[in-house]
Amino acid sequence: MKTAVLGFGTVGVGVYEMLAKARGLEPGPVLVRPGKEDAPYKVSSMEAIVNDPSVEAVAEVMGGIEPAYTYACAALKAGKHFVTSNKALVAAKGVELNRLAREKGAAFLFSAACGGGVPFLHNLALARESDSILSLGGILNGTTNYMLDAMQRLGLDYAEALADAQRLGYAEADPTADVSGLDALRKIMLACAVAYDLLPTEGLLHEGIDSITAADVRHFQPRGYSCRLLASGGRTESGVYAYVEPVLLREGAPACSVLQNYNMARYEGRNSGPIVLMGQGAGRYPTASAVLRDLSGILRGERYLFSTGCAAGKADNSGSVHCYYVRLPADLAGELEAESTELAGPVARLVTKPMSVSAMHETARRLRARGAALFFAAIGG
Amino acid sequence: MKTAVLGFGTVGVGVYEMLAKARGLEPGPVLVRPGKEDAPYKVSSMEAIVNDPSVEAVAEVMGGIEPAYTYACAALKAGKHFVTSNKALVAAKGVELNRLAREKGAAFLFSAACGGGVPFLHNLALARESDSILSLGGILNGTTNYMLDAMQRLGLDYAEALADAQRLGYAEADPTADVSGLDALRKIMLACAVAYDLLPTEGLLHEGIDSITAADVRHFQPRGYSCRLLASGGRTESGVYAYVEPVLLREGAPACSVLQNYNMARYEGRNSGPIVLMGQGAGRYPTASAVLRDLSGILRGERYLFSTGCAAGKADNSGSVHCYYVRLPADLAGELEAESTELAGPVARLVTKPMSVSAMHETARRLRARGAALFFAAIGG
Repeated sequence: MKTAVLGFGTVGVGVYEMLAKARGLEPGPVLVRPGKEDAPYKVSSMEAIVNDPSVEAVAEVMGGIEPAYTYACAALKAGKHFVTSNKALVAAKGVELNRLAREKGAAFLFSAACGGGVPFLHNLALARESDSILSLGGILNGTTNYMLDAMQRLGLDYAEALADAQRLGYAEADPTADVSGLDALRKIMLACAVAYDLLPTEGLLHEGIDSITAADVRHFQPRGYSCRLLASGGRTESGVYAYVEPVLLREGAPACSVLQNYNMARYEGRNSGPIVLMGQGAGRYPTASAVLRDLSGILRGERYLFSTGCAAGKADNSGSVHCYYVRLPADLAGELEAESTELAGPVARLVTKPMSVSAMHETARRLRARGAALFFAAIGG
Repeated sequence: MKTAVLGFGTVGVGVYEMLAKARGLEPGPVLVRPGKEDAPYKVSSMEAIVNDPSVEAVAEVMGGIEPAYTYACAALKAGKHFVTSNKALVAAKGVELNRLAREKGAAFLFSAACGGGVPFLHNLALARESDSILSLGGILNGTTNYMLDAMQRLGLDYAEALADAQRLGYAEADPTADVSGLDALRKIMLACAVAYDLLPTEGLLHEGIDSITAADVRHFQPRGYSCRLLASGGRTESGVYAYVEPVLLREGAPACSVLQNYNMARYEGRNSGPIVLMGQGAGRYPTASAVLRDLSGILRGERYLFSTGCAAGKADNSGSVHCYYVRLPADLAGELEAESTELAGPVARLVTKPMSVSAMHETARRLRARGAALFFAAIGG
């Protein structure tokens, strides 16, 4: 199956190389920016790809919503299978692309958009056919896991950990999407859509790691806790929940053994019980390997991760309840109902009584609007 | 897709229940022993199933090679898809059944035969299409993991741990296949066949946990080691290796966090890097969930785990080298080249110089033939 590649950055080069070696696949034209056509297989016109009848599939690894969305529509309208690693595209336009692909009988797969090399969405899509997915989530952002691991195991402060991550290529020059939790949120959106036929686009909550300090680590680490940025989703009687926030885990919890830039994705099926998948969450070859698995899946008959009826909708995070560790200015400590509070000069560190995810995120938003520097993390198992 | 179920034991009941709820699947007749037809959907004649044109797939969960093999051939010859959880059947007859299924255009899938609820073989089969599988293995037997965990965390002796496992339904009345490592060996045979197109049936080596004692645990545990029964497979220039043996791991190693009857399967792809999958390795619903995932996979176009060219062949375990912990009678300590030796009365505990898996297993066989009580475990990372 000749496959065109859109984008020739880190992942695109990996996809192109792997296509030449995979069973049943072969590399087609590679779309690059005008002026970058420095080899015969590189083209700068999407029309040339769409109109090439020998191209049966298109792998998009450019990132960003446009022009990726326009190209995706063009490829699918031409009846070509479409595989992407682009979580922003699928989070924003996945429902429309799924509908278009099904109209045209072309595949629409995006396992590489969630978990990098970890085959999460593919397994979730298979499991939901016969099992009921009670909950799902995990460590879905390798950049922030690398930074948290470096702060906790190596004692780096936030700026040092970020600089290290950038130097190693784990964080982009503008790391906002990673450190704010938005990247992990997009991934849990996709996982919810696969498991529950609902792509949550409203009511979502995400807190990243951009407020954590070395002093926070020095506070909870001696108490036997380790911090991870966890994405959580699930379905209850009141609907689908989906949020991202830092979580303090007892050292020895399985998620604490996820080091460096690794990802850990999990789901719990009513029948299967908990299923955990771990692997590299990013990087040229791990991400390319997920794109290639989707392409091989097409040869084996796989077509879609979203069901026919998958639609956008609203998440409800009012039913998930945790105690939270909160560090905030001492004069604001009274804004939260605390189980216990420790004061250290101008700073208070407290553990809240059980409160909903939506209440905690709303309180943080309100206090930050008043100028407060604040970090919070759910206290996990 | 109406699916007949062969066998109505622990797993069969789970498969039957799940079939009634899965998308696109429905329960067909259930084959039971003559005289056990106590409900309209139970039949005692395989002919009735084979000749029923409404039955499109057959799920076999009886165990044992016969009559399962005869039934498998009958189902496939009638063009019905065949799914099984029976590792003994696939280890003995998988190559023939794969050939017959491909002749008839029927599916032959057996994900439930390796890892219980953990979707290992399915992911391996997909990954090998585009990636090179460097090595694979893991904790593939839940019974022995439960026993080792109980001996190490709860301080039970071997007989107590076995009795507990039997009481909880994790070990059968005759636990030989589990504790000898044979069950895990069959599973690694299947994984090698999926990854390397070679089902190793000769040159295999397996050492179980039936020689470990509470005194062994008391020796290595204070030194920071934890024992797991690991299955290992891979391909080197000299061929495919496949063996099972106890391994002492540094506490904190990921495999040490696999508790109770859980399984952990892993493979390392040249491009994907290491991929780890964890979940329940046995039990009614976890195993049934794997059977159901295979059936859903058939609806999504999946057909085979073994390639067309998969053939039986010979494993070569002479290239894998470890240092071993060995406990044996003191007068035999000179039979092994040791890095260090501790004597305690009639017993010696030593750490060998690096030696091949085949040399260690051969030495153990030779010394046991002379009546020696001996336990050994590779020293892992």
